[in-house]
Amino acid sequence: MGELEIMKLNRIMECVPNFSEGRNRETIETIADIFRSKENVLLLNYSSDADHNRSVMTIAGEPEALGEAMVEAIGKACELIDMNRQEGQHPRIGAVDVVPFVPLKNLEMEDAVALSRQVGQAVGKRYGIPVYLYEKSASAPHRENLAEVRRGQYEGLAEKMKDKEHWRPDFGPERPHPTFGAVAVGARKILCAYNVNLGTDDLKIADEIAKKVRFIGGGLRYCKAMGVRLEERNQVQVSMNLTDYEKTPLYAAVEMIRMEAARYGVPVVGTEVIGLLPQKALLDCAEYYLQMENFRSDLVIENRLMEECF
Amino acid sequence: MGELEIMKLNRIMECVPNFSEGRNRETIETIADIFRSKENVLLLNYSSDADHNRSVMTIAGEPEALGEAMVEAIGKACELIDMNRQEGQHPRIGAVDVVPFVPLKNLEMEDAVALSRQVGQAVGKRYGIPVYLYEKSASAPHRENLAEVRRGQYEGLAEKMKDKEHWRPDFGPERPHPTFGAVAVGARKILCAYNVNLGTDDLKIADEIAKKVRFIGGGLRYCKAMGVRLEERNQVQVSMNLTDYEKTPLYAAVEMIRMEAARYGVPVVGTEVIGLLPQKALLDCAEYYLQMENFRSDLVIENRLMEECF
Repeated sequence: MGELEIMKLNRIMECVPNFSEGRNRETIETIADIFRSKENVLLLNYSSDADHNRSVMTIAGEPEALGEAMVEAIGKACELIDMNRQEGQHPRIGAVDVVPFVPLKNLEMEDAVALSRQVGQAVGKRYGIPVYLYEKSASAPHRENLAEVRRGQYEGLAEKMKDKEHWRPDFGPERPHPTFGAVAVGARKILCAYNVNLGTDDLKIADEIAKKVRFIGGGLRYCKAMGVRLEERNQVQVSMNLTDYEKTPLYAAVEMIRMEAARYGVPVVGTEVIGLLPQKALLDCAEYYLQMENFRSDLVIENRLMEECF
Repeated sequence: MGELEIMKLNRIMECVPNFSEGRNRETIETIADIFRSKENVLLLNYSSDADHNRSVMTIAGEPEALGEAMVEAIGKACELIDMNRQEGQHPRIGAVDVVPFVPLKNLEMEDAVALSRQVGQAVGKRYGIPVYLYEKSASAPHRENLAEVRRGQYEGLAEKMKDKEHWRPDFGPERPHPTFGAVAVGARKILCAYNVNLGTDDLKIADEIAKKVRFIGGGLRYCKAMGVRLEERNQVQVSMNLTDYEKTPLYAAVEMIRMEAARYGVPVVGTEVIGLLPQKALLDCAEYYLQMENFRSDLVIENRLMEECF
């Protein structure tokens, strides 16, 4: 369906699944076509990274239709991606690593939680894939943080699942799917996937900076970060998830990284957004750097003209 | 009319009239109500400045309806504003100083030129106000630049108009209206009115910086600038018009001012946008300061959802 049709939908849910395949164009396109072919569902964007060996898709749509398309896409990934032969920079526990639902228009977080449970149940039953509910959907506090659910990755999953007290899945079998592994499904606020590239090939430096800038290291409250090597560029990057871009803005993350990188005499050579991000995440940066005193989003002519459109 | 209705209009023209009244709220509101009351016309925004003693309104609408509303508003300003008692920081030649039309949606520059001529003709005839067509509507090269048309201001207008060879008006009488003066009406691209406030009360410094940053001084190609004193703040500002924000972006203007201000040890304390500006003018700044490598405006989720809306 087209953009104009989707704006007519009364309720819009977003889904940002991460597939553990960033190199095989045919596999990625086959999965993308599932979303392209559905009524009341729109594939907004996808980006693949060969180093991460990962593809992130952003899909919007009517909740039920989006959920069904997502279940179908996970089944297709189960056919096409064999985790026993998958390797890449980015941690993952399965062929589809994480499936977050985000309430976008006329929907509440509880609607996203309900949809994540429906999708998780169908995936566990239909494909025999263990499903962990995470973040707002988590069934226990130790499962809220995706990093915890993912710890040990695909390779350590069988061992991890033996600890049934902590890691019995919410849906599906109590052992990994032999070629898929497991999947984390959940509900969350809009997240900005934002990477900062550094003028060095020393992964230790990116890791050290990531530790300083992220929440668990004493850094920014809504920042998750890790160092990643970019083989193709012979550089390293601080790869971040900003889980609340209004409280931990992009400019704060990049300026804190610049400050820490200065310790090593390393420059920030560039940054990149993965997937999509809300207009406000960028307007807040323009406002900060331009030192604007009177900024309001309705100073933007398109926003005034479209105010009631979204 | 509301935002949703105006989006249904097939053609949208914008008008950004500058009224030489920034202090008397009642006068400004009376004029604003003219635009609020019209079919197929929408007052998007207005801002008044007491130091400039000037109000800038941004109106969008169907061209014919917008033109008629504009003629009516000029007549009301002629009743309510007496230039013999008007004083302010901002140069002006009349109670309504300048009336630019900007093609916004499904319209060409020639449509804006045609509308400016219709409005100019009606104003000259109906109110006996001399009208100068400027910029894309100018009837001679020496009238393209608004600063030239405005030179001498209201106080020097009678003398200036004696030079009939150069300053015979395009419409209306060959002498100033006794209380209104004259008005410049024209057509142009979207313009960003952008002011940079400095941490000093020395107007000479703002003037010197303005001379360096503006086109005629050897500065940025699409930048007009002047120094303005902000009495209320006890500061000065470089007040700019960026006539092509894609070729002379906001970040280039503020960084060049910062660079020149450093010569005096003067900091940039803040900036402000007057009226409205296009989203791209701000996204370009976020992209520059964040050093984004992969920026495209459709990374913004609202833009992907609304692509065909505008």
